[in-house]
Amino acid sequence: MNNHVYIITGVSGSGKTTIGQLLAAHLAYPFADADAFHPPENISKMSAGIPLTDADRAGWLLALNQYIRQQKNGLVLACSALKQSYRNQLAQGVAEDSLHWIHLYGEMDLVRRRMAERKGHFMPESLLVSQFDTWEKPDAGLLIPILQTPEEILRQIISTMALPTQWGLAGLGVMGLNLARNFARRGFALSLYNRHVSGTEEKVAEKAVNQYPELKEAQAFESLPDFVQSLARPRKILLMVNAGAAVDQVFEALIPLLEPGDVIMDGGNSHYEDTQRRQAEAAKHDLFFLGVGVSGGESGALNGPAIMCGGDAQAYAQVAAGLESIAAKDAGGQACAALIGPGGAGHFVKMAHNGIEYAEMQLLAEVYGVLRWDLGYTPDEVAEILTQWAENGLQSYLLEITIAILQRREGSDWLLDKISDKAAHKGTGSWASIAASELGAPLTMMTEALFARFVAALRDHRQVMAAAYTAPQHKVTLDKDDLKQAYQLARWVNHQQGFQFIQMAAKQYQWQVNLSELARIWTNGCIIRSELMQLAQEYLSDSPDLLLHPDLKNTVTALWPSLQRTVSALSFSSRAYPCLMSALAALNGSVTAHSAAHLIQAQRDYFGAHLYERVDDPSGKKYHTHWE
Amino acid sequence: MNNHVYIITGVSGSGKTTIGQLLAAHLAYPFADADAFHPPENISKMSAGIPLTDADRAGWLLALNQYIRQQKNGLVLACSALKQSYRNQLAQGVAEDSLHWIHLYGEMDLVRRRMAERKGHFMPESLLVSQFDTWEKPDAGLLIPILQTPEEILRQIISTMALPTQWGLAGLGVMGLNLARNFARRGFALSLYNRHVSGTEEKVAEKAVNQYPELKEAQAFESLPDFVQSLARPRKILLMVNAGAAVDQVFEALIPLLEPGDVIMDGGNSHYEDTQRRQAEAAKHDLFFLGVGVSGGESGALNGPAIMCGGDAQAYAQVAAGLESIAAKDAGGQACAALIGPGGAGHFVKMAHNGIEYAEMQLLAEVYGVLRWDLGYTPDEVAEILTQWAENGLQSYLLEITIAILQRREGSDWLLDKISDKAAHKGTGSWASIAASELGAPLTMMTEALFARFVAALRDHRQVMAAAYTAPQHKVTLDKDDLKQAYQLARWVNHQQGFQFIQMAAKQYQWQVNLSELARIWTNGCIIRSELMQLAQEYLSDSPDLLLHPDLKNTVTALWPSLQRTVSALSFSSRAYPCLMSALAALNGSVTAHSAAHLIQAQRDYFGAHLYERVDDPSGKKYHTHWE
Repeated sequence: MNNHVYIITGVSGSGKTTIGQLLAAHLAYPFADADAFHPPENISKMSAGIPLTDADRAGWLLALNQYIRQQKNGLVLACSALKQSYRNQLAQGVAEDSLHWIHLYGEMDLVRRRMAERKGHFMPESLLVSQFDTWEKPDAGLLIPILQTPEEILRQIISTMALPTQWGLAGLGVMGLNLARNFARRGFALSLYNRHVSGTEEKVAEKAVNQYPELKEAQAFESLPDFVQSLARPRKILLMVNAGAAVDQVFEALIPLLEPGDVIMDGGNSHYEDTQRRQAEAAKHDLFFLGVGVSGGESGALNGPAIMCGGDAQAYAQVAAGLESIAAKDAGGQACAALIGPGGAGHFVKMAHNGIEYAEMQLLAEVYGVLRWDLGYTPDEVAEILTQWAENGLQSYLLEITIAILQRREGSDWLLDKISDKAAHKGTGSWASIAASELGAPLTMMTEALFARFVAALRDHRQVMAAAYTAPQHKVTLDKDDLKQAYQLARWVNHQQGFQFIQMAAKQYQWQVNLSELARIWTNGCIIRSELMQLAQEYLSDSPDLLLHPDLKNTVTALWPSLQRTVSALSFSSRAYPCLMSALAALNGSVTAHSAAHLIQAQRDYFGAHLYERVDDPSGKKYHTHWE
Repeated sequence: MNNHVYIITGVSGSGKTTIGQLLAAHLAYPFADADAFHPPENISKMSAGIPLTDADRAGWLLALNQYIRQQKNGLVLACSALKQSYRNQLAQGVAEDSLHWIHLYGEMDLVRRRMAERKGHFMPESLLVSQFDTWEKPDAGLLIPILQTPEEILRQIISTMALPTQWGLAGLGVMGLNLARNFARRGFALSLYNRHVSGTEEKVAEKAVNQYPELKEAQAFESLPDFVQSLARPRKILLMVNAGAAVDQVFEALIPLLEPGDVIMDGGNSHYEDTQRRQAEAAKHDLFFLGVGVSGGESGALNGPAIMCGGDAQAYAQVAAGLESIAAKDAGGQACAALIGPGGAGHFVKMAHNGIEYAEMQLLAEVYGVLRWDLGYTPDEVAEILTQWAENGLQSYLLEITIAILQRREGSDWLLDKISDKAAHKGTGSWASIAASELGAPLTMMTEALFARFVAALRDHRQVMAAAYTAPQHKVTLDKDDLKQAYQLARWVNHQQGFQFIQMAAKQYQWQVNLSELARIWTNGCIIRSELMQLAQEYLSDSPDLLLHPDLKNTVTALWPSLQRTVSALSFSSRAYPCLMSALAALNGSVTAHSAAHLIQAQRDYFGAHLYERVDDPSGKKYHTHWE
């Protein structure tokens, strides 16, 4: 039974109402303002500027006391209660352990400044002085200095009074820990859980709380039931455990511990189909399950990641404030977090994000390869050239770190040259290509990038092949401005493929995805943030088909010859440029009205009787020829 | 209870033993030769060349009669039994309905010729004449002319006596029907089953039996239990139903009807993982399940497809004779059918076959596109050029049908120009790319081909894009011999990727796949049969790594500059050549010892702390740099 009463006291301007409302919302309690309980005669007096006497207050305090004693669903009451005698009257007959005092206290100067900032709210200096004169140091309760943000005050209340916390984070690996610190820095009261694995994972949450000052008020758990019990309802639990079996394990353990309306969020790189399966399972228990794509790596998690949510809108409404608070902010100050769509939409677009990222990284590796080995620049010179590019419209996070990498030394050598090219890839990197193959979406660039990683991973085989073969050697003649423009266009083609992929999935799964809004979220916090993404946001708001935007059409048309010259020149290189070549083929293919594929249709009909459509019959009727 | 006795009679040389043994094997009955029952005194007489009298024969016939009456497990007995009186003695006291007579009958000239052909077996002319004189036309039983192959005689016996049949085919779509006709033409006694679906599939098996003369002795069923009952044990059932749910449906319906040791074969394009799941399920019931890849389209199914089996070797031994009989034959006359490996190996390599096929078709479409639109040849001229290529080392089934397609007219127009380029693809086409993404195999060419189909399928979008954009127009200058050599090299790269893919899967799943043997199977019957495949068979027998074969190394080295010149020239085309470009990138990438991928490793470590290996530490130890 919720028979607890929280009374927030303090002088006018101390923030009683703000804090009271925040606390009431957190506890899901009703909120009341004591001023509303004055009888008409008191209000008349106050309106006339006549100060109330203790006799005037007696009836009011009695009414408040009665109201407090009658409450059944908990209560947060904002009441000046400057004197101890008033407080005693309010507490009359109320069980001691159900009444909690929170006294907001600040210097008069601070309160005066605050009052002055409040629009349309004027308090005579004399009244302010009188309030401070009247105030008596309380006998009991929590005394809180108001020299903090309301969120910080709320967290202090939650923490000191051991109230249910606001957010639960389960799984404190690199990403989980950094997200927890991010939440804490934004003023959230947290419960942190990490499983106990003897020898390898012991007291992980407790250690985090001890190690990071911003986490010192967080509650640490190794018991999942205790963790769940510590959370305010509806519970908001963000899972940051490894995608796959680990998510299922925690999810299944949570189900019996939760109550209808609680929200589980999976912030890992889960496959969107797994997310959809878990959403269906959660719904059976009247729970919510959101798939939350989080991008930005370690530093993004700490300082503001891009957050792509998928699932129920009602559930998102519960967690939006928290997620948007920790997210990166776009150029307009808006949070890079949103509900992308229902179902697995959040994890789907995170997967697409990673696919785009694969191709962006491969394009940079190709550009670097051309500059260094075909055109003969040193890493320092390449870094200089790329810096100029960044200053001329091609700024991006990945370009930025590429420049930093190129400049990094180990002694007198470039560190880069000590790094093996045995590139690695997580299984998740292949999901976008797999989904594209299933959806019928031509994701050539990110798939070439994926396969380039596979080739890089087959390092031993490449060594054997390199010993057997020497590619024909030619001097490559290429203007580096052509390369810049080719790179720029290839990036547009890559983004076009990525957004088209998402659009095809949205159609298939009946999601309503706003591509411009998605691009906006990707303008900051995430790995693929860039100037290009800001333009994409703008273009996509006019035309969901990116390349059909008239401005981009002009750009593409202007850059196209450079991509042709670049691919033509690189055909004589001994090195591989799959993504640049694929970009040109993809662009040409996408604008070819009548392609050679009619031959493929004829072949299929020839050997497999697979039928074909005719150009002179728009009905879509299928035809078969007896070829033999 | 098997209390049936089949007695095969006939003069010496009529084939009693051959037919008797075939029949015994088919029925899984013991076989006995009556000659082995003669008492020593008879043998002495015969050895001395003294003809036996009826008195001599009395004891022998009595012994045989006793043997027949004591049999418990069925019996096939080869016994001359030239006179009706001998036959009566053999039948004494044997239940009439359990005794079956099969009399082999032929002209004396034919028997004489056959005897002459038998090595080390001499029969005096006088004895032959005496046997024909002695022979009495039988009162009862089946009289079979021996002017047929043993297989045909066996089928006639099975059919006329309504014995269990040899092979069951379930599913009479285009492929199933043509495989059934192929089996029948090779002399197999068949049971044919097709489900009953009112209005759409009614009496399908019966209609097939009535329509095709070679199927007239086959048994037709719409009842699965009756179909199963009609088959000799261990049953051999080839499913030719749609991959996916339909296979599971029939498979599950079959399980309770079958007995331990029976063999189910799935001849459809099932996913190899589904096959492995079904194999595990079948094993629980002591049944065998083979995944059977069948390639060759409609005409291959009828005249001899390539057949790739996966599963248990013991089960394959049961069905090998049948499958190898209907398969295409390679240049050496050996069947293009084999057990590729355990588990899903058969369906896996069929999937890889289709992937290679996708890229081969796309390469032909690209070559045709270049010749027609970049170099300006008419379809007739393109056909002429391709005919020259075919005559100069590039012969293949797909090239052959391409030439036929190019020459095909509709009135005075080329039929090809009436065919829409809205290319289609079945879901199965994407499986190879998906499996490659999962296995870490760089299948760039077949995936570019797959995505080219997707682009072709998005015809409406291409029309819109074509209205908005005009690709830069340049004249493409390219020697058509360079194009030929580029095409030739691209095909080698495609095959290299395909075989490497299979090798990686074989390693992953611990299959022992003989790539040269697989290439041999692909030299005939299947869609990707070609001169190149014959060379691949040869090269792979020396080097499982195709491109490392010294002869092919010379070929590749010689062709490489042509591929470079071709891609360079085509960079200025307004059309897309993804497979040719991808071939060059793949080849270059595969021989690059130190690639630009070290930058990717640095990027991954920078934003995700994913670690990297160092070139100066061959231990494979992982390093991390604090980049920021």
